[in-house]
Amino acid sequence: MASHQFDPGYVEEPFRSLCEDYPAAETYPADDFRVEWGPVFHRGRLDGSARVVVVGQDPAQHEVITRRILVGAAGQRTQGFLARLGIQASYVMVNTFLYSVYGQGGGERHADDAQIAAYRNRWLDALLVGAEVEAVVALGRLAARAFQAWQATPAGQGVEVAFEHITYPTAPESAAGGDPDRYAEAVAAMLRNWNDALARLRPAVRHPDVDRDPVPYGEALTDADYAPIPERDLPAGLPEWMRSRAWADRRGRTPDLKRATIVVTVPRAARRWTDA
Amino acid sequence: MASHQFDPGYVEEPFRSLCEDYPAAETYPADDFRVEWGPVFHRGRLDGSARVVVVGQDPAQHEVITRRILVGAAGQRTQGFLARLGIQASYVMVNTFLYSVYGQGGGERHADDAQIAAYRNRWLDALLVGAEVEAVVALGRLAARAFQAWQATPAGQGVEVAFEHITYPTAPESAAGGDPDRYAEAVAAMLRNWNDALARLRPAVRHPDVDRDPVPYGEALTDADYAPIPERDLPAGLPEWMRSRAWADRRGRTPDLKRATIVVTVPRAARRWTDA
Repeated sequence: MASHQFDPGYVEEPFRSLCEDYPAAETYPADDFRVEWGPVFHRGRLDGSARVVVVGQDPAQHEVITRRILVGAAGQRTQGFLARLGIQASYVMVNTFLYSVYGQGGGERHADDAQIAAYRNRWLDALLVGAEVEAVVALGRLAARAFQAWQATPAGQGVEVAFEHITYPTAPESAAGGDPDRYAEAVAAMLRNWNDALARLRPAVRHPDVDRDPVPYGEALTDADYAPIPERDLPAGLPEWMRSRAWADRRGRTPDLKRATIVVTVPRAARRWTDA
Repeated sequence: MASHQFDPGYVEEPFRSLCEDYPAAETYPADDFRVEWGPVFHRGRLDGSARVVVVGQDPAQHEVITRRILVGAAGQRTQGFLARLGIQASYVMVNTFLYSVYGQGGGERHADDAQIAAYRNRWLDALLVGAEVEAVVALGRLAARAFQAWQATPAGQGVEVAFEHITYPTAPESAAGGDPDRYAEAVAAMLRNWNDALARLRPAVRHPDVDRDPVPYGEALTDADYAPIPERDLPAGLPEWMRSRAWADRRGRTPDLKRATIVVTVPRAARRWTDA
């Protein structure tokens, strides 16, 4: 028997109520959001121990299987970014949107929706008001806009916290359209952006969990820049391979079937049976 | 916003510890169990309110996605069986095995493994000793053997509870091998077995949640004999379609790929987007 940690989930208020009453298709139209997979709420500490709040964008295929946000490639790069701040456990992440954005421009079209913001602000209130958070990191433009909208609320105005808007962790993939040169350029630009943000965040994050790694990112992402999702962030019993690299994919012959399908594949290295 | 219930999970002891320390491949060999998908622990009440304990066999593909046992066809038929006892909420389910059995005879080969039983007995102790459970229902032969092994332990000997071993809810599918006549016969035999068990269980279950349905099963399974999995049994945010009928499948061109792959498909009725 090995000992495992897991995320106890939405036990205490106000998180329990936030996971009982949440906006659905009346607020998130099914043509712009994959409401059919259900909302995915958070990842990380809900016990007040978070020093850094990460605001992401929307959950994708890995996230609707594990039911925690920022678990796939974007999450593992974010985890590496936090590690460079010495933050290994004291963080909590919420997204701009509860549901996966579908299609081009779906996120933009709903960036300022009042009902979406009202619910999201209840999460930000719960995580930031009267809390010990020292910095907020927004991943991408929509997340930055969401956080700044909260800062303009009465509750937000009362909270003093460092804030950095950084390039979305998988923006290089989106920008490159499969072109390796454009991808390399976009990664280098992202890592410069991240290094600049880290330099400003280090003095703000005064209570890191461990000593910070002072080495900046290079020109390209290395294996070490992907940190596995900590076991304690996921629900009980999830296998280890769900915490690193890619293992879920949307597939289908038609757009309709692709939207309706997620294929989960155990990575080769985790196939421990005889005939593998 | 609609209000939703969800299962808070493994918050209280001893369940928290049982989900932190559990047997893995050293106890469940990877050639006989799909350890690669992780353990799936339970479904239902862990707060002492259960009047009926169901012992199932092993989790399959729907269960490793939802991370709760007896969610697919077998679970929905079991839910219908409990409804005939007037039990809609006051139940809890555990399995004989933490991991999905792989291949023919894997379950038989490990039916009496001491380490598997030791961990399972800790769950049965937690659910039955000093509890208000009035009846235990074992689904299939292996589950009955597991429960009877627990009854022979010192803790089990001290617990007085009605016990019924019923035909496994998807035994007709296994027995029929695709032959519709054999399937119909096997279903009819199962439902006779279930009617007999219900007749004996009704007087034992003295505290049903609602009035019992006195109508026995017919010769064939009807739609009404499948009860959806209650929302409150699954983790927060899972979509409604994960609680009824079939939506997960093992697929792959080779046995290796099939073992490594689960395809999750949103059922047609739940595809609410425009081009569906």
